[in-house]
Amino acid sequence: MIETDILIIGAGPTGLFAVFEAGLLKLKCHIIDGLPQPGGQLTELYPKKPIFDIPGFPSVLAGDLVHNLMEQIKQFQPGFTLGEVAEKIEKLEDGTFIVTTNKGTEHKAKAVAIAGGLGSFEPRKPLIEDIEFYEEKGVEYFVKDPEKFRHKRIVIAGGGDSALDWSIFLADVAKEVTLIHRRNEFRGALDSVEKVQELKHAGKIHLITPAEVVGLNGSEHLESIDIDENGAHRNIKTDYFIPLFGLTPKLGPIAHWGLEIEKNAIVVNNALDYQTNIEGIYAIGDVNTYPGKLKLILCGFHEATLMCQSVYNKLNPGKKYVLKYTTVSGVDGFDGTRKEAEKAVVKAID
Amino acid sequence: MIETDILIIGAGPTGLFAVFEAGLLKLKCHIIDGLPQPGGQLTELYPKKPIFDIPGFPSVLAGDLVHNLMEQIKQFQPGFTLGEVAEKIEKLEDGTFIVTTNKGTEHKAKAVAIAGGLGSFEPRKPLIEDIEFYEEKGVEYFVKDPEKFRHKRIVIAGGGDSALDWSIFLADVAKEVTLIHRRNEFRGALDSVEKVQELKHAGKIHLITPAEVVGLNGSEHLESIDIDENGAHRNIKTDYFIPLFGLTPKLGPIAHWGLEIEKNAIVVNNALDYQTNIEGIYAIGDVNTYPGKLKLILCGFHEATLMCQSVYNKLNPGKKYVLKYTTVSGVDGFDGTRKEAEKAVVKAID
Ligand SMILES: Cc1cc2nc3c(=O)[nH]c(=O)nc-3n(C[C@H](O)[C@H](O)[C@H](O)COP(=O)(O)OP(=O)(O)OC[C@H]3O[C@@H](n4cnc5c(N)ncnc54)[C@H](O)[C@@H]3O)c2cc1C
Ligand SMILES: Cc1cc2nc3c(=O)[nH]c(=O)nc-3n(C[C@H](O)[C@H](O)[C@H](O)COP(=O)(O)OP(=O)(O)OC[C@H]3O[C@@H](n4cnc5c(N)ncnc54)[C@H](O)[C@@H]3O)c2cc1C
Repeated sequence: MIETDILIIGAGPTGLFAVFEAGLLKLKCHIIDGLPQPGGQLTELYPKKPIFDIPGFPSVLAGDLVHNLMEQIKQFQPGFTLGEVAEKIEKLEDGTFIVTTNKGTEHKAKAVAIAGGLGSFEPRKPLIEDIEFYEEKGVEYFVKDPEKFRHKRIVIAGGGDSALDWSIFLADVAKEVTLIHRRNEFRGALDSVEKVQELKHAGKIHLITPAEVVGLNGSEHLESIDIDENGAHRNIKTDYFIPLFGLTPKLGPIAHWGLEIEKNAIVVNNALDYQTNIEGIYAIGDVNTYPGKLKLILCGFHEATLMCQSVYNKLNPGKKYVLKYTTVSGVDGFDGTRKEAEKAVVKAID
Repeated sequence: MIETDILIIGAGPTGLFAVFEAGLLKLKCHIIDGLPQPGGQLTELYPKKPIFDIPGFPSVLAGDLVHNLMEQIKQFQPGFTLGEVAEKIEKLEDGTFIVTTNKGTEHKAKAVAIAGGLGSFEPRKPLIEDIEFYEEKGVEYFVKDPEKFRHKRIVIAGGGDSALDWSIFLADVAKEVTLIHRRNEFRGALDSVEKVQELKHAGKIHLITPAEVVGLNGSEHLESIDIDENGAHRNIKTDYFIPLFGLTPKLGPIAHWGLEIEKNAIVVNNALDYQTNIEGIYAIGDVNTYPGKLKLILCGFHEATLMCQSVYNKLNPGKKYVLKYTTVSGVDGFDGTRKEAEKAVVKAID
């Protein structure tokens, strides 16, 4: 059982920054995310795109913002349960919570902050017979650990950035990379398209277009796939099939936790601390709603900060909190590191 | 008469970022600040100190954050009335406002956002007879325009960073710089103290310590000052006397605008849009208060954003607002420039 002060569901920018604000208040955090990596929408949907409305950044690539946030919270050593979806919640008599993931991992926490964005990302699955049977037996909707594919034959299907970028990346890892798309045209960053073209000519990526995967074969594990190439059927031997047809976020299991939901978002008390109708459960970032709500990254940062303050007050009743500026007081990490401004000297001039 | 959509009082980080969010909504802003430069507390009190809790910046110097914000809002061409304090406000029958400064500059706006921080900074004045008489006649509490001192004799008094840093800066501008402090020890950044020491030895700064300025002379304009150096009196010829003994923020004139005030801050409706008890007047950043308020820069950013949205809705009644992501829609400046993410291409691979 993983134990922590604040359990954060969702490793998007909001959840990540909450770790920092909690850390300033000496509260430990653990984050669960269904995706294999932190960053939420920014990493999954637009890592190489610039964002222009993060205060203080005239422009910042989404991936860089996530990288910076990870660097900023490092001192507070957050725990991560990645690639697992928070599924069940139970409130104990003493007010603490047990949250269990779809893989059975249990987390115990004094407070829960749902920073689930638009929900947990679920892959759009192609309509191929028996595809569920092959999941975790050769069919993968995410590339969680590229090493898994080393010296293996893989087939990627899709026509967007994910399909292009993973084909490029895995061309150096896998024994054989085949990219299948139902059109001749790909839609993505110009340099990704050009790189795939180059790798195709170098014989490092096999391209089959326009074509569709129509069948999966193998007894214990995937062994080959059937494709329909302009009406002609063909069989290709492969160890893995990775369909990358995009993700749709679903509020999912959280929708059944007894929280007040409005238009697919969790209603919170924005006049105070972004707490939900269940005491001790907060909702911050894109996942919440209130009058005037804007689904913007910068709003999630503010909400995360006020949430941490509220948890602190709850856990330290009667203790008068005095706001400390990081510039003045420095930042003491749980890892023993300290960041601080250079101290003024008091010194005579002679 | 200066006309604008949103008149912002206070050029601290909150007021500056409001220009950006307003710009995204095609609203023009004008900013009034009593200080000679933008940046509020960050520029005036700790420009060279690092801040650790700006989301996405593991560390950023206060001065750099202000610089970045100025760069970010540049596209929206904000107007500035600097070095003037907003003193009077009048609400016209059509709901617009006229705000007049202590120097008589008039501004007309559809909405007013008070981003006044802890208030307008007022210099701590030394207790020297007739000092008010010499204000603007040789006595200066701020260095608004260093060029004013070119080839002049100046005397700076004070023992902190401002006194040290302006002495260093003006050593290259003025004909003669004298630095007077009532102790031998200075309190400031180590490199500033060392630099003053170096300039003293090079004969570019005259240092008189421990000493105090006790009298001012001159008929039309300051001509000389009297100092008390360890009990001995002395007269020094000078064109300017710049006492830099720190600033104290005072809510000042705003306190008498009929706004609901609590503990020196303006009460706002944080459950909606940070509006005050007077419709059309908002208060954002350090200057406001509400249950759970934290005087942090990142909170001001959020408040500024929701304020702009509210003004937009008020000025465009009935128009359904659809949030546009900067990443997706780009940013169109009022100066004709456009920032945008690289577009995806749709391209066949052959
Ligand atoms: C193309 C695009 C461009 C954008 N441009 C901008 C922009 O310019 N400016 C801006 O401010 N915003 C922009 N946004 C919106 C911005 O990305 C979101 O506001 C932001 O990601 C919200 O952050 P978050 O942390 O609240 O949620 P998210 O980033 O959505 O992260 C939520 C995380 O929670 C996880 N999760 C959800 N439910 C569960 C569960 N039950 N168990 C485990 N994990 C779960 C998800 O897997 C996800 O990783 C853009 C969005 C898109 C798609
Ligand atoms: C030493 C120090 C360290 C700090 N460290 C941190 C930190 O690490 N993190 C953090 O988040 N915050 C920190 N803060 C607080 C932070 O500086 C404030 O939260 C921030 O400056 C508030 O921004 P603002 O724009 O609301 O107001 P301000 O920065 O105070 O700006 C308000 C401006 O309004 C002007 N003004 C007021 N009234 C009038 C008027 N009537 N007419 C014209 N102009 C007017 C003032 O001159 C001023 O320039 C620190 C503060 C100090 C002093």
